[in-house]
Amino acid sequence: MWIEKFSPTSYRSIFKWGNPRAFHHPDDRLLSFIKEAFGVTENDLENLRLTGTDEVKLTKKPKLSDTDTKKIIAVVGKENVDVSGYERARHAVGCTYLDAMRLRMGEIAHPPDLVVYPRNEADVVKLVDYCAKKKIPVTPFAGRSSVTFGVEPINGGISLDLTRHMNKVLEIDETSFTVKVQPGMFGPAFEKVLNEYRSDRIGSGFTCGHFPQSFEYSCVGGWVMTRGAGGQSTGYGKIEHMVICMRVVTPKGVIETKKFPADAIGPDIDQILMGSEGAYGVMTECTMKIWPYRPENRKMFSWFFKDWDEGLAAMREIMQGEFGFPSMLRLSDAEETDIAMKLQGMEGSAADKLLSLLGYKPGRRVLLLGSTEGDKDHGKLIVRKARKIARGHSGFPLGAIAVKGYWKRRYNDPYMREDLMDIGIISDTLETACSWDNIKHVWADVRKVIKKRPRTVLMVHASHAYPTGANLYFIFLSPVKRGKEIEDYTQFQHAIIDAIVKAGGSLSHHHGIGKLFAPWYEAHVGPVAFGMLKAIKEYLDPGYILNPGGTLGLDAKKSKK
Amino acid sequence: MWIEKFSPTSYRSIFKWGNPRAFHHPDDRLLSFIKEAFGVTENDLENLRLTGTDEVKLTKKPKLSDTDTKKIIAVVGKENVDVSGYERARHAVGCTYLDAMRLRMGEIAHPPDLVVYPRNEADVVKLVDYCAKKKIPVTPFAGRSSVTFGVEPINGGISLDLTRHMNKVLEIDETSFTVKVQPGMFGPAFEKVLNEYRSDRIGSGFTCGHFPQSFEYSCVGGWVMTRGAGGQSTGYGKIEHMVICMRVVTPKGVIETKKFPADAIGPDIDQILMGSEGAYGVMTECTMKIWPYRPENRKMFSWFFKDWDEGLAAMREIMQGEFGFPSMLRLSDAEETDIAMKLQGMEGSAADKLLSLLGYKPGRRVLLLGSTEGDKDHGKLIVRKARKIARGHSGFPLGAIAVKGYWKRRYNDPYMREDLMDIGIISDTLETACSWDNIKHVWADVRKVIKKRPRTVLMVHASHAYPTGANLYFIFLSPVKRGKEIEDYTQFQHAIIDAIVKAGGSLSHHHGIGKLFAPWYEAHVGPVAFGMLKAIKEYLDPGYILNPGGTLGLDAKKSKK
Repeated sequence: MWIEKFSPTSYRSIFKWGNPRAFHHPDDRLLSFIKEAFGVTENDLENLRLTGTDEVKLTKKPKLSDTDTKKIIAVVGKENVDVSGYERARHAVGCTYLDAMRLRMGEIAHPPDLVVYPRNEADVVKLVDYCAKKKIPVTPFAGRSSVTFGVEPINGGISLDLTRHMNKVLEIDETSFTVKVQPGMFGPAFEKVLNEYRSDRIGSGFTCGHFPQSFEYSCVGGWVMTRGAGGQSTGYGKIEHMVICMRVVTPKGVIETKKFPADAIGPDIDQILMGSEGAYGVMTECTMKIWPYRPENRKMFSWFFKDWDEGLAAMREIMQGEFGFPSMLRLSDAEETDIAMKLQGMEGSAADKLLSLLGYKPGRRVLLLGSTEGDKDHGKLIVRKARKIARGHSGFPLGAIAVKGYWKRRYNDPYMREDLMDIGIISDTLETACSWDNIKHVWADVRKVIKKRPRTVLMVHASHAYPTGANLYFIFLSPVKRGKEIEDYTQFQHAIIDAIVKAGGSLSHHHGIGKLFAPWYEAHVGPVAFGMLKAIKEYLDPGYILNPGGTLGLDAKKSKK
Repeated sequence: MWIEKFSPTSYRSIFKWGNPRAFHHPDDRLLSFIKEAFGVTENDLENLRLTGTDEVKLTKKPKLSDTDTKKIIAVVGKENVDVSGYERARHAVGCTYLDAMRLRMGEIAHPPDLVVYPRNEADVVKLVDYCAKKKIPVTPFAGRSSVTFGVEPINGGISLDLTRHMNKVLEIDETSFTVKVQPGMFGPAFEKVLNEYRSDRIGSGFTCGHFPQSFEYSCVGGWVMTRGAGGQSTGYGKIEHMVICMRVVTPKGVIETKKFPADAIGPDIDQILMGSEGAYGVMTECTMKIWPYRPENRKMFSWFFKDWDEGLAAMREIMQGEFGFPSMLRLSDAEETDIAMKLQGMEGSAADKLLSLLGYKPGRRVLLLGSTEGDKDHGKLIVRKARKIARGHSGFPLGAIAVKGYWKRRYNDPYMREDLMDIGIISDTLETACSWDNIKHVWADVRKVIKKRPRTVLMVHASHAYPTGANLYFIFLSPVKRGKEIEDYTQFQHAIIDAIVKAGGSLSHHHGIGKLFAPWYEAHVGPVAFGMLKAIKEYLDPGYILNPGGTLGLDAKKSKK
């Protein structure tokens, strides 16, 4: 009943999260859970709706003048300009639920006029200069995994696709443990080059340490400019902790920062550019920290705790123990833990019964997954210290097995969203970060708002931890109101965002702001800070050509909220 | 022969680095070294020059109108305004060599018109608003330990002294491991409150982890706004890695950032304000990370290496070993090592002879000091791993003793500068940071320029390390040209700064830019980044009232270089 094949020029080929050729359907267990949780019938399963299998038809004509088009072709060459409807459609949307839903409805609201593939920084400089002069919008584009409308060219113009040419590692400095890389390089290719590098000095290759769930289909440029976080950021840090320096092309000229390990030379320029999400400039090079690639040293551990409070306390104490950080700590709340047990076929098993008997009861128990990387002895020490802390909080050890399962599924699970949408189920996520003294409050308040919606499944985890706090990641599934797919979801989503902000969580921990969260942004950072960011925008991009149409709310006439 | 006593209202009381009551004179060993190295005679020692023991005489009258003065008094109260010549003089200078030399010459070039002690943020808001309206310069002032002319009120106006009232810890959050503190709190008072706090949960108090050499006489506000680094930054991080959020008063209004452990909400506002050195706003509160105070867990270790290359390689490998960081790593180059040996009475000792015999020869051997803090077992692991690395680089272990000596002297040694200046010896420092692949080059190039000056002693160490590089700290001593004290020194200093920048080092690792390094600043960060920082300035402080007269070169008509 699931869709296996579809035209490579259909809407479906675009919204299929990640790779249209990668099919990952719900298994029988998940299917029976879906039927039970959402009241999905066999009839629903046989009558898939809004599947987006039609061919892309882009009716909007490119608005660029012939002169402009010719000038742009003169810069990059004919072969590096695409005006086809399909490519313009593909460059019009990111990968959030709403993007997919609009595609299913055959709606391409804001296509670029041209898709342009610059060959190098010189091309980018020429394009940005020309577009600044002619007030043509320029939207940087790489992996397209944005879940914030980050790459949607609201005002048309050119989509500057960096993945075709600007996708290489330029330099590995094995003395300083840094790599210089171009923005359009995808995660796997980047990691492969680093892994396969042979350093006699360290006796191995390197790793980038950054593995977001979107890893397979996201690029360095997006990671950096939106302040992403990988699944192992607890050990390696978020991307903004890894970046050493960069080159960024702006209408005002090129900004180049330098390869200093740290400095005291005024405001941090990199930290201004990171988070600017294409609205301040186009990154053309980035130098980042790297680490020895030693997967054989990886240790995995997991623990059940009797409840969320105990799990959080253990997680916090591990992060505050001053013995170094695990590469990953991932604490599922009770509902996520129960669903994971169910989907792994553990519900009702002997192990489940034993856990219940010992006081780890469904509906309350929570699961903490952890791993370490780096030096082997240090990993052992971390596991030993974490064990002691876990025991102090009623922890029940599960060993490596639960982590191994998660490890295998970590990139794949989101790919099921398409099938769920085919049967009318919303499947989306929102996320935040908060200090330890506020985390239970944020979790409870946001949870309350989400669970108010009938037949809504909510899985929450804290998956990026710090000594001072952690993120919270909310995954929610719920039947959508048929015929009102956009309005229904949007209303729900906005209520959740309101709840996050009201409870004192950050507007984002690692997805970024883009155009989706922009209406909340000015109030979130405050009017003076916002004015300061707008002043930077006006200096670097006085014509408002870079990622216009609402990015960070910087060029919005009036905020929607 | 050294000066023990002087009037508490003399120039000397101001330039006496730190506390005028703390006397720390060269001992016999240092004295004989000074005689030998610089050709200082008994006659010089008996005829101290430019000792600054005269009473401060400030001839410049305050320029503020009576109306302005009355308005300012109406805000903070009469008791919180000081117009006395001595206080105005004391608020006119920082603590760099040139500040002291100018004081010795009785020169107070740029006194504030008024010294004002705000009681709280509301006072600061009113003062900044009033001064913005009336274009009265406002220079934030706290510990006065600046070595960059950072607190010098070039255009007069008010010196906003935050140390009298805004000097308290406001909140310790033992759940999130954060402290909220006011900017005018001195290091020791801050650390004392944290140490003495009793947390039942962690069974101890806390530490701030930030111990710059100026610790005793510097304040939180200066640490944060200039991007300082403490002696244990290798473990705890630089100040900008510790700050979580802050409140900053600007002419445009108050900026408040939030207590998130990390986020993806656009450019990092804290990282824009940190490094603004009082030119963007006045910080009134800061929330920082804290750590458990467990001095009993501290481990110390030290190693001799045969040469600078081996020492650097060991230091780098420790930082790149992925087993956690020592709290401190401090590698002295050969000249600094030899001088330390000499001053500790080790030269020619049995130990010295043994070392030479084993191949650790004077003129080549270098000394690495290290310490760990935090979890005891983790400390042990770090020491064990460091030992293995050190052995691989010809390391000869010295144990804790060398570190203990350094530990005792770490705040005190700079206080000897005054005595050296009394006998006509320049004693000053410059510093930089660079990646590992460039560190030997920077060291060699800068060293060459400094050693070109006759009779110049140069001690270099790397004292703040990272996986990607380290700082270099240059301490130089040299007889000054009598009668040309300012010109001679300035010329020398500028040549060194030129050499640092030319070799590819950062303009500062932790002293900041202030007004001293501003002439190099625009070229260092590049014109577009500089323009961006100026755009922020123009937005937040369009009247250029905040720390005007050259801070970061933001309001300079034309750069001097």
